Amino acid sequence: MRLFEHEIQIRVRYVETDQMGVVWHGNYLQYFECGRTEALRACGWSYRELEEAGIMLPLVEAHLEYLRPAKYDDLLTIRTTVRGPVSARIRFEYEVRNEAGETLTTGYTVHGFVDAKTRRPCRPPAKLKALFG
Amino acid sequence: MRLFEHEIQIRVRYVETDQMGVVWHGNYLQYFECGRTEALRACGWSYRELEEAGIMLPLVEAHLEYLRPAKYDDLLTIRTTVRGPVSARIRFEYEVRNEAGETLTTGYTVHGFVDAKTRRPCRPPAKLKALFG
Amino acid sequence: MRLFEHEIQIRVRYVETDQMGVVWHGNYLQYFECGRTEALRACGWSYRELEEAGIMLPLVEAHLEYLRPAKYDDLLTIRTTVRGPVSARIRFEYEVRNEAGETLTTGYTVHGFVDAKTRRPCRPPAKLKALFG
Amino acid sequence: MRLFEHEIQIRVRYVETDQMGVVWHGNYLQYFECGRTEALRACGWSYRELEEAGIMLPLVEAHLEYLRPAKYDDLLTIRTTVRGPVSARIRFEYEVRNEAGETLTTGYTVHGFVDAKTRRPCRPPAKLKALFG
Repeated sequence: MRLFEHEIQIRVRYVETDQMGVVWHGNYLQYFECGRTEALRACGWSYRELEEAGIMLPLVEAHLEYLRPAKYDDLLTIRTTVRGPVSARIRFEYEVRNEAGETLTTGYTVHGFVDAKTRRPCRPPAKLKALFG
Repeated sequence: MRLFEHEIQIRVRYVETDQMGVVWHGNYLQYFECGRTEALRACGWSYRELEEAGIMLPLVEAHLEYLRPAKYDDLLTIRTTVRGPVSARIRFEYEVRNEAGETLTTGYTVHGFVDAKTRRPCRPPAKLKALFG
Repeated sequence: MRLFEHEIQIRVRYVETDQMGVVWHGNYLQYFECGRTEALRACGWSYRELEEAGIMLPLVEAHLEYLRPAKYDDLLTIRTTVRGPVSARIRFEYEVRNEAGETLTTGYTVHGFVDAKTRRPCRPPAKLKALFG
Repeated sequence: MRLFEHEIQIRVRYVETDQMGVVWHGNYLQYFECGRTEALRACGWSYRELEEAGIMLPLVEAHLEYLRPAKYDDLLTIRTTVRGPVSARIRFEYEVRNEAGETLTTGYTVHGFVDAKTRRPCRPPAKLKALFG
């Protein structure tokens, strides 16, 4: 599998707005994180278990494009795509839509595999590599 | 010493506002945290070193009273009072004022001493106990 | 009705943890906020519509007691109680439990009714007053 | 002037860390925001006044590259570069360094000029255009 798509829904919290009356731009990285967590869970991975097994996935790169603002109490759909192949790095792509189906924000993040103890790069788990080629 | 007072200044960040156009209420706990960190540093303690030495100070209780809102870009003064005696717990009191000298928020936090490894209650460091009686 | 109870579930986000390995203490005010929003919705109120109708509910007071820490990926239950009577102020009480049913955090918030334009205290909406006496 | 560089220092707050023991990746957008605010102030602009004058600068794009993690209590230097020319958009570049002078994170943000009332694109303020060509 080279591509795994997953969708979740998130209700915008009041705290996530700023005085512009819309979601503060950095909070989309929270939404991406939620999408990523659930996408991994849906293909058999719990990020929590991954960390408990001693592997962390710190970000190497993040990119966001803002098309339309999200507002308080909006019910957002976060579509996360895990894009293989998984090598020393893993890439996730995101699209945030509102209830009207409009795309609000898109972006991607790239993560490295790191040994939690040594904090040095490590190989991706074999099972994950098997899954995404 | 039964009482140690310390003041710092914090500039309100855009991210800290919400769509009411004022600082989101929970962010005062961030300001309290900054005040607490610097108050401890001013009486010879670095919270970072405390944690590195294996002692954590998780919250047991927090209380906030909101009198007037803080706004974006306000330069706030956070006055932190460490109130002895230090026993199994330590108490900090806070007052947040704006540039006009108006009190915006007051509150307090109570913390326990916890061994970072066992996550169980532990004695306060002798030096801190000596300081605050 | 003097009392309205409502429960929601929230999955702890990675961003909500701190280096102590648990949920940062101030984030419970986010959870309380989510609980409050959904409790109001469940008894026929949308906080969004309330604000659009020109009424805001800023905090006057908040209180939190921390019994046990919540951890990343925990599925928390937030029980919110709206406690009447509703006068110039409205009071919400909260209890956060984990999947094992343990109480992690309790607290309450007190809010005033404020006219969004004048930013001055105003009467509670008649319908809300009728509901909670 | 095609280029304006400005530096500020920021102390990492406890709340900004996550359970990986480092600054949560999205918080760099807060640091960028602080750098941007102070860079604008240093060349004669207050973002607060800009908004009060009816002009907002929402993000169109953001990009971050993570080289090394920042830790709790680190004293970070944020270097912000305003890169002209200013047209319908304005671009800021950022570099975050620690006390050892190591580069931790770099990135940029692109912003549009928006009329606060109509929420539609508008021209950049003449003075800003004069400044950055």
